[in-house]
Amino acid sequence: MTQNTLDMWTEAPAIAGVIALIAAAALFMRIKSLPEGNETMKRIAGYIREGAMAFLTAEYKVLAGYAIVVFGILAATLGLQAGLSFLSGAFLSLLAGFIGMKGATLANVRTAQAATEGGAIGKANALLTALDGGAVMGLCVAGLSLIGLVGVYALYNGKPELGTMLHAFAVGASSIALFARIGGGIYTKAADVGADIAGKVIENIPEDDPRNPGVVADNVGDNVGDVAGMGADIYESLVAAIVATMAIALTADASKLRTLVVQGASLDDAAVKALAVSLPLILSGIGLAVSILGIFIARLMKNHAPSTVLRSAMVLPPLVVVGITYLILPSFQVNQSVTVALAGGAIGGALIGLLTEYYTGHYGPVKSVAESAKTGAGTNVIQGMAVGMQSVFVCLLLIGAVAMVANSAMGELGLYGIGLAAVGMLAGTAIVMTVDAYGPVADNAGGIAEMSELDPSVRVITDELDAVGNTTAAIGKGFAIGSATLTVMALFSAYSLEVKLPKADLALDNPMILIGLLIGAVLPFIVGASTMTAVGKAAGAIVVEIKRQFDTIPGLREGLADPQPAAIVNIATQAALSHMILPGLVAVVGPVAIGFILGPAALAGALAGALAVGASLSLFMANAGGAWDNAKKYIEKGGVVGHPKRSDTHKAAVIGDTVGDPFKDTSGPGVAILIKVMSVVSLLIAPLLANHH
Amino acid sequence: MTQNTLDMWTEAPAIAGVIALIAAAALFMRIKSLPEGNETMKRIAGYIREGAMAFLTAEYKVLAGYAIVVFGILAATLGLQAGLSFLSGAFLSLLAGFIGMKGATLANVRTAQAATEGGAIGKANALLTALDGGAVMGLCVAGLSLIGLVGVYALYNGKPELGTMLHAFAVGASSIALFARIGGGIYTKAADVGADIAGKVIENIPEDDPRNPGVVADNVGDNVGDVAGMGADIYESLVAAIVATMAIALTADASKLRTLVVQGASLDDAAVKALAVSLPLILSGIGLAVSILGIFIARLMKNHAPSTVLRSAMVLPPLVVVGITYLILPSFQVNQSVTVALAGGAIGGALIGLLTEYYTGHYGPVKSVAESAKTGAGTNVIQGMAVGMQSVFVCLLLIGAVAMVANSAMGELGLYGIGLAAVGMLAGTAIVMTVDAYGPVADNAGGIAEMSELDPSVRVITDELDAVGNTTAAIGKGFAIGSATLTVMALFSAYSLEVKLPKADLALDNPMILIGLLIGAVLPFIVGASTMTAVGKAAGAIVVEIKRQFDTIPGLREGLADPQPAAIVNIATQAALSHMILPGLVAVVGPVAIGFILGPAALAGALAGALAVGASLSLFMANAGGAWDNAKKYIEKGGVVGHPKRSDTHKAAVIGDTVGDPFKDTSGPGVAILIKVMSVVSLLIAPLLANHH
Repeated sequence: MTQNTLDMWTEAPAIAGVIALIAAAALFMRIKSLPEGNETMKRIAGYIREGAMAFLTAEYKVLAGYAIVVFGILAATLGLQAGLSFLSGAFLSLLAGFIGMKGATLANVRTAQAATEGGAIGKANALLTALDGGAVMGLCVAGLSLIGLVGVYALYNGKPELGTMLHAFAVGASSIALFARIGGGIYTKAADVGADIAGKVIENIPEDDPRNPGVVADNVGDNVGDVAGMGADIYESLVAAIVATMAIALTADASKLRTLVVQGASLDDAAVKALAVSLPLILSGIGLAVSILGIFIARLMKNHAPSTVLRSAMVLPPLVVVGITYLILPSFQVNQSVTVALAGGAIGGALIGLLTEYYTGHYGPVKSVAESAKTGAGTNVIQGMAVGMQSVFVCLLLIGAVAMVANSAMGELGLYGIGLAAVGMLAGTAIVMTVDAYGPVADNAGGIAEMSELDPSVRVITDELDAVGNTTAAIGKGFAIGSATLTVMALFSAYSLEVKLPKADLALDNPMILIGLLIGAVLPFIVGASTMTAVGKAAGAIVVEIKRQFDTIPGLREGLADPQPAAIVNIATQAALSHMILPGLVAVVGPVAIGFILGPAALAGALAGALAVGASLSLFMANAGGAWDNAKKYIEKGGVVGHPKRSDTHKAAVIGDTVGDPFKDTSGPGVAILIKVMSVVSLLIAPLLANHH
Repeated sequence: MTQNTLDMWTEAPAIAGVIALIAAAALFMRIKSLPEGNETMKRIAGYIREGAMAFLTAEYKVLAGYAIVVFGILAATLGLQAGLSFLSGAFLSLLAGFIGMKGATLANVRTAQAATEGGAIGKANALLTALDGGAVMGLCVAGLSLIGLVGVYALYNGKPELGTMLHAFAVGASSIALFARIGGGIYTKAADVGADIAGKVIENIPEDDPRNPGVVADNVGDNVGDVAGMGADIYESLVAAIVATMAIALTADASKLRTLVVQGASLDDAAVKALAVSLPLILSGIGLAVSILGIFIARLMKNHAPSTVLRSAMVLPPLVVVGITYLILPSFQVNQSVTVALAGGAIGGALIGLLTEYYTGHYGPVKSVAESAKTGAGTNVIQGMAVGMQSVFVCLLLIGAVAMVANSAMGELGLYGIGLAAVGMLAGTAIVMTVDAYGPVADNAGGIAEMSELDPSVRVITDELDAVGNTTAAIGKGFAIGSATLTVMALFSAYSLEVKLPKADLALDNPMILIGLLIGAVLPFIVGASTMTAVGKAAGAIVVEIKRQFDTIPGLREGLADPQPAAIVNIATQAALSHMILPGLVAVVGPVAIGFILGPAALAGALAGALAVGASLSLFMANAGGAWDNAKKYIEKGGVVGHPKRSDTHKAAVIGDTVGDPFKDTSGPGVAILIKVMSVVSLLIAPLLANHH
C-alpha cells in the first residue's frame, strides 16, 4: 500500500462523518415535520426548549470565555496553530451539543404526540420518534469528532507538529466535556432533587404534576445533562481514545512499531509509522459507518420490543467492526494482534455494560438494596454503597483483564494495544450516543404527557420507553468509564515518551512519583465534593422557591393558577454555571501546576493516582446511584411484598435515590472526565515540561 | 561510637518497653483496688466484661488457626525462624489486646463509681480512672511492640536474614491488626446500629435504656472495637513504621546511606549501615520514654479541663522527641536532616489531628451537615459525603507535604526520610493509644451509669469525659491514617530493592504497572463492601432479635423483667467472626496471588493503586462518619435553632449517623490497615518473587 492509498483510507472517516451529518439533517427534518400535539403540549414543550436553550446559551458564553483565555495561552506558548486546533476541538463539541439538543427538544413533544395514537402503532411510532431525536445527537457527535480529527491529520500529516495539534484538539474536546458534563449534571440533579423534595415530601403531589413549578426545570435538566452533557462526554471519549493511540504511534520507536506489521512486510519504517498513526482513525471510521447502518436497521425494527432493539443496537456494532477489521487487516500487512486488541475492547465493553446492568437493574444487588430499606434509610444507604463498591471490584477487574489481553496481544506495543481496545470499545459511539440521548427524549415525553394531562395510556407507553432508556443509560456509562480508563492508560505511554524522563525517574520507588500519587488521588475528591455540594445547595434553593410559589400564588395548590417555572430554571442555571468553574479549573490548571512546580515525575505520579482513584470512584458513584434509583423503582413496582409505594420502606428508598442522584449523574461522570482532561493536558504540556526541567 | 555502644543504644528501647509494662502493671493494680460500686453496677459491668472476653476468646481461636497456617507456610518457604518471627509479631499483638481490654473493662465501672462522688473531685477521679484504664492498653501496645522488635534485632543483628525476620514480625503484627480491627469494627457497629434502630426508632426508648437487650452488646462493642481493635491497629502502625525504615536502611547502597552522617564522620560503611538500621528503633525508644513521662504528667493534671489535658498529651510528646533528637544526633555523627524529617512527621501529625478535628468537630463543616438535615436525610447524607471528600483533599495534601519535606531534607535517602517522618508521627504512640482507649472507658462508664439508674449528675460527668474522648478519637484516627500513608510509601522503596527489578519495569509506562494499579485500586473497595454489608446484615439481625425479646418477654417493655443481652452478644460475635475472614484473606492472599501470577511489577503497581485509593477512601470514610456523628450531636445540643432533639431534622441527622457508623469505625480503619498489610506481605515475599521471575 502506498502513502497515497493510506492517506485516502485515513481521510475516509471524514466521508463517513459527512454522511453521518447528512443523515442527522434528514432525521432532524423528519422530526420537525411531525405533529406537535395540542396547545398545552406546545406551550410546555416550548418552556422546556426555551429553558434548555437559555441554559446552553448562558453556558456557551462562559465556555467561550474559557476557550479564548486558553487559546491565548496556547498561542503564546505552543504557537497559533496549537491554539486553533484547541479551538476546533472545543467548537465542534459545542456544535454537536447545540444541534443534538435542538433535535431532542423537538422530538420530546412529538414522541408524546405519537404515543397518543395508542396501541402497537402508537408505541412503534413513539419509539421511532424518540430514537430519531437521539440519533441527531449520536450522528453529530461521532461525525463531527471524526471530521475534526481527520482535518487536523490532513493539515499536519507528516509534519513534526502533528502530535501537538492532535493533543490540543483533544484538550479542547476534553475541557468542554468536563464543563458541560458537570454544569449539565448540576443543573439536572439540582432540578430533579429540588422538584422531588418539594413536590413529594413537602407538598405531597405526584411526580411531574403540572402545579409543581420545578417540573419544567426537571425536564430541561434531562436535556442539558443527559443530552448536551452526555454528548460532550462521548464526543470527548472518542477523540481522546483515538488521539491517545495516535500519540503512542507518533512517539514510539520504529523498531517497536514494526511488531505491528506482518513479518516480511514490504514497508519501510516511515510507512509503518504512518500506518500505526492512521489505524485508530481508520478503525473508528469503519465504526461510524457500521453505526450509521445500525441506526437505520434499528429504525426498521421499531415494531419489536424496545429493550431488544436498543440493547442489540448498543452491543452489536463493535463486534461487527471487529469482524470487518479481521478481514481487511491483511491488505494493510497488519498483524491480527490488532484484531485481538480491538475485540478485547469490544467484548469487554459489552460485558461491562451487562455487568453494569446486573448491578443497577432489577437483579440480586438492587433487590438487596430494596430489602434493606425495610429497616430504614440508614441501612438502605449503607447497602447501596456496598453494592456500588462490589461493582467497582468486578468492573475494574474486567477493565484490567481487557487491558491485559490487549497488552499481551501487542507485545512491545502493549499500551498501543490498550489504546486500540479503547477505540474498539467506542466503535459504536454514534449508536451508543443515539440510545443515550433517546432516554431523556422518552423521559421528557412522559413529563409533557403528564403536565398536559393527556390520557394515562400515553404515559404507559412513554413509561415503557423511559424504563428501557434507564437501563441503556447504565450500559452507556459502563462504556464511558471503561473506555476512559483504557484511554488514560494509553495516554501514560505517550506522556512519558514526550516528557523525555529517564525510566528511573518514572519508577514507583521515586519519592516524587509517590508524592504525586497522593496529590493526584485528591483531585477526584475535589471534583466530587464540589459537585455534591453544588447539587445540595441548589436543590435547597429550589425547594425554598417552590415553597414560596405555593405559599404566595393564590390558587396554585388547587390547580387554578399557573406556576412560574422560569424562576426555577434561573436558579438551576445560575447554580450550574457558577459551580462548574472550580472543578473545571482543577482539572485543567492542576496538571499544569503540578508539572511546573513539582516536576514532570510528580505529574506522572499524579496521573497514576488520579487514574486509580478516579476510575474506581466514578464506577462506585455511578453504580451505587443506579442501584438506589432502581431499588426505589423496584419497590414502586411492588417488588418488596407488603411494602408498597408510599410505605415507610418506599420513603427510605427515596432517600437513597436522592443521595444517588448527584452520585450517578453529576459527580461520577465528572470524575471520569477529570482523569482524561488531566491526561490530555499533561500530554499537551509535556514538551514544555521537557524543556523546563 | 563503637558497634557495642550502638547496640546498647538500639537495645535500650526494650528497657523503655519493660518500664512501660511495669507502669501498666502498677496502673492495673491500682484500678483493681478501686471500689466497683453497687450490685447492679457490678452485675452490668460483669456482663460487659464477660461479653468482651467471650468475644476475644472466640476471635483469638480463629486468629490462632490463621497464625498456625501462615506459620506453616512461612516455615516451609522462608524457614522456621521466619515462621517464629511472624508468630512473635502476632502473639505480642494479641497479648497487648488481652491485657489492655482487661484493664479497660475493669476501669469502666470504677470510672462510673468515681463519678458518683460528684463535683470537681468526682470529675477529677473519674478522669483519672478512665485515663488509667486507657494507659494499661497504651503502655502495653508501645512496650510490647518495642520489646518484640528489639528482640528480633538482637537475635539477628549483623546476619543477612535480619530483614526477612523483621518483615515476618511485621506481617504477624499487620494481619492480626486487620482481623482485630475489622472483627471488632463489625461487632461494635452492628451492636451500635442495631441497638439504636431498635431502641430509638422501633421501641422509642432512650439510648442505654436498661430494658434494651442490645445495650450490653453496644458497650461490649466499644471495648472490642475501640480498645482491642484500635490497640492492634496502633501496635501495627508502630511496628510497620519502624520496620519500613529499617528495611530501607538494610537494602540501600552504602554510598547513599553515607548521606545520613555528617561530613568527615569517623565511620566505615558497615558502621553507617548499622547506624541507619538502628536509628528508627532508638528514636522510637525515646518516644516511648517521653510518652511514659507524659502519661504520668497528664495524671498529675487531673484537676484541669479534660480536653486541655488530653489534647496536649497527644500533641506534645512527639515535639519533645524532636527536641531530644536534635540534641543527641551530633554524638551519633548523624546529620540534622534526620531531625527535619522527624519534625515533619511530628508537626504533620499534630496538624492532621487538628484538621481532622476541624472537619469532624463542631465547626463550619459539621454545622453545614447539621443545617442540611433541615431538608431531610438525603441532603444530610449528601453534605456529609461532601465534607468527607473535602477533608481528603486537605489531609492528603498535608501528608504529601510532610513526605515532601522529609524527602527533600534527606536527599538521596528520601524514602528513608519519609519512613522517619512516620516514626516521628508515631513517637507518642503510648500516649495516643492511652487517650484512644480512654474514650470507650468513659463511654462505657456512662452506659453503666444509665443502665444502673444512677443519679443523672453521674451521667453529666461521664458525658463530658466521653465528649472529649470523641474528639481525641478523631485526632487518633488522623495520626493512624497519616502514618499509614507515609509507612506504605517507605515500604515501596524496600520492596523495589528487595524484588530486584530493573527501573524500567517499575516505571509508570510499563503496562503491567498500570494493570496492577487498577487491580490494587479495587482491593480497598472489596474490604469496604464486605464490611459495610456485614454491619448492615448483623445490625438487621440484632433489630429482629430485640423486637422478638420485646414481643415475647412479658414485662420487659414496662421494665418489670430483665432482657437477655447474651443473645445479642452472640449475634454480634458470630457476625464479626464470620465476616472478618474475607477482607483479611484479600489483604494477605491478594499480594501473593498478584505477585506470583502477574509478576512483581504488577504487584508494585497494585501497591500504588491500593495506596492511592486506600489512603483517600479511608480518610473520606473516617471523616464523613465523624461529621455525621457530630452533626447529630450538634442538633441534640440545640445547635440548629428551632430544630431540637426528636424533630424531623434530628431524625434525618440520625440517618446520616447510622450511615457514618460503619464508615468511621469499620470500613475506614479496615481500609487503612489493608494497605499496610499488603505492603508488608509484599516485602516479605519479595525475595521469593525475585527468584521466581
